[in-house]
Amino acid sequence: MKREKGLLIVLSGPSGVGKGTVCGALRKHDTHIRYSVSATTRKPRKGEVEGINYFFKEKQEFERMIAENELLEYAQYVDNYYGTPRQYVEETIAAGHDVILEIEVQGALQVKKTFPEGVFIFLMPPSLKELRSRIESRGTESKDLIDSRMTVAKDEIELMDKYDYVVENDEVESAVERIKSIVTAENCRKERLIHLYKELVEE
Amino acid sequence: MKREKGLLIVLSGPSGVGKGTVCGALRKHDTHIRYSVSATTRKPRKGEVEGINYFFKEKQEFERMIAENELLEYAQYVDNYYGTPRQYVEETIAAGHDVILEIEVQGALQVKKTFPEGVFIFLMPPSLKELRSRIESRGTESKDLIDSRMTVAKDEIELMDKYDYVVENDEVESAVERIKSIVTAENCRKERLIHLYKELVEE
Repeated sequence: MKREKGLLIVLSGPSGVGKGTVCGALRKHDTHIRYSVSATTRKPRKGEVEGINYFFKEKQEFERMIAENELLEYAQYVDNYYGTPRQYVEETIAAGHDVILEIEVQGALQVKKTFPEGVFIFLMPPSLKELRSRIESRGTESKDLIDSRMTVAKDEIELMDKYDYVVENDEVESAVERIKSIVTAENCRKERLIHLYKELVEE
Repeated sequence: MKREKGLLIVLSGPSGVGKGTVCGALRKHDTHIRYSVSATTRKPRKGEVEGINYFFKEKQEFERMIAENELLEYAQYVDNYYGTPRQYVEETIAAGHDVILEIEVQGALQVKKTFPEGVFIFLMPPSLKELRSRIESRGTESKDLIDSRMTVAKDEIELMDKYDYVVENDEVESAVERIKSIVTAENCRKERLIHLYKELVEE
């Protein structure tokens, strides 16, 4: 089946919900989906590879990218920038491939302004209690910081309404299967295939 | 995950595209989907079972059902009526189960008036040439009748625009997988899950 453009798929959700785990599990499946790599000014951690985990940038270079509109979205966390380079995403969907971005809620809403035709998936914890226990199980944060993360998470869940789909992350492989189904279904949407009808009837 | 209502899924497409074959193959998969059984005034063929293949009705009884609005859609072909009993569909979706109707294009458009929130899937032949060859392979129809069926099929394909999804029936199992994905994805649509968010935040 011929395609005009690929899909831009945005996977987002509150911090701690398991976006990275789900996206990592999805990559192990045999799909045609391409993965966008974020840029950051954070220093590489042990084992992280340039162009696979992140594009590592100096602060000055990152700010030049912001100024020249080379990022689809960006945000600053704890003195470091994180963002999505625009060029890879635009070229890949123009070539007819689907691309997935795994990003924070605020970034997803920035992308929506530029790409309202994207497929926005909100990854949802089974419960707030479960979300809290996932954040706690990292074991790196104080009670106050966990409380403040939970407040942010609640605010982010309220933004669910801006998304197209909600996927409960009750079990990683179930969430992956739902995301794969959403991508398949979106590729069957009439709006994306209407050109086929023209080809068929004009045969 | 709690559900408020099931989905009404309408599988339709031009005569000869293979709706019955695809729906039959879908039934062999382990899904939670329920199947609506049509009513008809046609006499049972050998092996057809009341309540499984059709509900067989006398003409007078069928016309009473039409008059009393007991059918979601109906049509007349070669002196026989065919239609979808409303009660089964409404009760099943109200109980939270997804129901699929496999019906003709004109019937699908009637259902859309009553159930605009339904999921309308158009089954598409890979090409008009392939559609013609499928109709010819039945071996029961004259060239004139085949020509007239092809004219109707082209008109029906123009109605693709009224549907939500287009599934190419290039290979039966691929078409079945796409339909299953559409059902999964539709069950993840934000509009259908927004009540969950309320439960979560009000925990």
